Order: sequence, then structure tokens, then C-alpha cells
Amino acid sequence: MNNTDYIFGIRAVIEAIKAGKDIDKVLIKKDFTGELAVELFQVLKEYSIVTQRVPLEKINRITRKNHQGVLAFLSPITYSELDNVIPELFEQGKTPFILVLDGLTDVRNFGAIARTCECAGVDAIVIPEKNSVSVNGDAIKTSAGALLHIPVVRAKNLNKAIKQLKESGYTVVGATEKATENYTKFDYTVPTAIVMGAEDTGISIENIRECDYLAAIPLLGKINSLNVSVAAGVLIYEVVRQRLGKDL
Amino acid sequence: MNNTDYIFGIRAVIEAIKAGKDIDKVLIKKDFTGELAVELFQVLKEYSIVTQRVPLEKINRITRKNHQGVLAFLSPITYSELDNVIPELFEQGKTPFILVLDGLTDVRNFGAIARTCECAGVDAIVIPEKNSVSVNGDAIKTSAGALLHIPVVRAKNLNKAIKQLKESGYTVVGATEKATENYTKFDYTVPTAIVMGAEDTGISIENIRECDYLAAIPLLGKINSLNVSVAAGVLIYEVVRQRLGKDL
Repeated sequence: MNNTDYIFGIRAVIEAIKAGKDIDKVLIKKDFTGELAVELFQVLKEYSIVTQRVPLEKINRITRKNHQGVLAFLSPITYSELDNVIPELFEQGKTPFILVLDGLTDVRNFGAIARTCECAGVDAIVIPEKNSVSVNGDAIKTSAGALLHIPVVRAKNLNKAIKQLKESGYTVVGATEKATENYTKFDYTVPTAIVMGAEDTGISIENIRECDYLAAIPLLGKINSLNVSVAAGVLIYEVVRQRLGKDL
Repeated sequence: MNNTDYIFGIRAVIEAIKAGKDIDKVLIKKDFTGELAVELFQVLKEYSIVTQRVPLEKINRITRKNHQGVLAFLSPITYSELDNVIPELFEQGKTPFILVLDGLTDVRNFGAIARTCECAGVDAIVIPEKNSVSVNGDAIKTSAGALLHIPVVRAKNLNKAIKQLKESGYTVVGATEKATENYTKFDYTVPTAIVMGAEDTGISIENIRECDYLAAIPLLGKINSLNVSVAAGVLIYEVVRQRLGKDL
């Protein structure tokens, strides 16, 4: 499956959504109106589908067929719900480990991080609905297929998702080079969520404020940040090290 | 500086080499002969320049000017010599830490690893002359400039370089998922060289045999390997963790 899996046309998109198809997002031309528009917007709202208003040309570049200004990208995976993931992990008797990606935009980084997560036994990945990578064909390819094995939650509101993790007993650790404490100082043998920020801006301020701890990977040279997929790997395997350490 | 920095023409290339220009490699058309060929080959040998015989079309794709079948890529950095790096690091009173990359081929991986090395205070990177990435414009860009700060050694014979590191008191640890021991079990607070293998084939057998220890990063999922730049990050920061641990 790749980026070109899509359906188009107002009625076709409405019916696909009602039939329970997994939709990545729906593109709608900017000046879209008319009778069917009302019905489409109702369905989009009811099923909480991510929509994006775009210039007509953007849809024309994807297909020249009669799309009527509406095009839906199908999702190669079914996203999970945090409301289900949290109790499921506790029922499995696990010490859960969740990775939260706050606004990552590079699909190669996303894929590499997902691959690391699968290798390290991370239980789920949480991404926000907007201004973020999503699970498309490129992401799956870069992840070496990991994204087909690991539950991905797409949170409407990432800040609320982090709050929910805390209320469920998770220790939430935010990774930022601005932190004063070394990432190795924290105890990851408890239920843990690690938050990684966007490539350029890091974790948003509102999410930084929600973290229980802020952790830095020591930087001993002149360059002031690691690649985000390398940083994620270092943090994730510190969790693994601490948890396996008990058994070794 | 980028990949397009090159000079061409037999006499021009000979003079550039004699003048001490840093050459990445010289491309020579397959059926190259003639009077000046003898002189060129002597100079290439004398200065130990990496050369590659290629079809004429390959050089034509780079420039249509009168290259006479000879084209030299300039190197954006001056490579270091292991014979100099080893004593220099000991004289600086450091516990040296060197990363050896055995036949990496993806320049983005190379750049990402170099960036991690700079951030983690790795003292030098060793790569082989042949069948390997080299320091070109793309590598420097992906490394966020790290490759301009960290010494890179280009070994004519990587196996000999590893032997030399061992004879100089380094503990050489090879990273391979086939190892039976966890990477966290080894002591990295001594002079250390870590060997990482090529993306597809890993470390070559002859170099595997030269390692003091073989270390695996635990893989707890279904995918049987990490991305090499993530794996390098995990190993490099385990060294940092152990070394900083003494001071924390």
C-alpha cells in the first residue's frame, strides 16, 4: 500500500466513511459548497475524520478524474484508541511503555523511530492528528514494516492524551536538550511514557508543562542536538537496559 | 562544498595531486592508455589515491567538457592517519573512543552517525578506502557539519587498522545482532573501539574475528535489526553513560 491509495467524489467518500473504511485524511477544495456538502461535513464530523481544505490544483495533481473537489486518502492501518490501549496493556500484566511523538514532520524519522519501537518492545506510539506525520506507505516502508505490528494512537488532542497517561499511572518523561538532568537518572521500570518533540521546535510548551520530568541526552561536542530518531533510540534503549537489568 | 567539486583532464589531475590537493577519488575510463597514463598511474600510486575504472559514459554524465577520460573528485576534508591519531589521543590524556564503520554504503546513515559521534565526544571515525561511503558534500550536510569537526581516518586495510587499535591497547567491540552477549555487559571506560557493520551484510568475517568482544543490542520484537544509525547511537551513548557515570 502506498500514498496513491485514495478514493474521490462526494458520494463515494461519504459511503466509504459510513462503511467504516480507515481514512487517513480527506482533502476538500477551498470553495466547496452545495447540497451534498452539508451531508459530507456531517459525516466527517460524526466519524472524526481529519480534513484539510486545499486549493483545487492540489487535488488535480493527485487525479484528473471527476473528483468533485473531494478526495480521501485511505489509511494502511487501523489506528488504536488510547481509551482501549491503556486498559489492554494493564490487563496483559505488562509494565507499559508508550512513546509520544509531538508533531514530528519527517516521515523517514517516523519510520525509523517506529522500527526502533518494534525492536525494543515499545507497546504503542501516540501521534497527534494535526501537524504531524501519519501512517502512510512511505512511513511503513521506512519502518521496515514495524508500523503494521505496533499500535498507533492518533490523538485529537495530544495534551489531553498526556494527561490521560499520567492519570493512568504513567510517569511521563519529556526529552529536551534544554533539560538540566541526564536521561539516565530516571527510573523507567515503572509504567513510562516518553515524549519526543518535533525536529525543529521540540516538544510544545503546553506539553512540556505536562511532563513529570524533563530529560536531556548529554551533548559533549559543538552540535547542539542529535537527530530525533537517534535520540529516540538512545532513550528507548535506556528503558530497555533498566528493565532487562533486573533479569540479567 | 558538494559532490560537483571536481577537476578533470590528465595533466590537471596529475598537477592537483602533486600540489597536495585532498582528492576523494579519481575516475578513469576503462580503456585509458597512452604516454601520460604511465605518469598518472605513478602519481596515483605514490600518493595512495583511491581510483576507480569506469565506463566513459559515467564521466560524460558528470561533465561534457574535454576530460580525456580522467576526473578527480576533490575531498571537502583532509583525512587523518591512524598512525597520528592514536598517539595524539593518548598525549591528550584522553580515554580514547573510536568508531570503526566497516563498509557502510548509505551516505545518510554515515552523516547521522557522524553527527552522533560529534555530540557524544567520539574521538575519531575510521572507514575503509574501498566499498564504503566517504566524506562528500551530502555526508557533511546530513552530519549537520559534524564531519568538519571530527577526524576521519580512511584505512587502506581496515583489518590492519583494527589490529593496530588492539596493539595500541584498545578494546575492540563488534556490534552484531548475532552476538550472544548484551552490549551493556562490557566495560567501555577503557580505551574503546566499536565496530559497526554495513547496512546489509554487517561486519565482514575477517573483522569479526579480530574483535575482542561481540555485542548485541537486544531485539524484543519481530524485526531482526535496527537501523544502523540508531544502533550506533545506542552503543555510543552506552559508552557515554558508563564514562559519565563515574562523575555523576
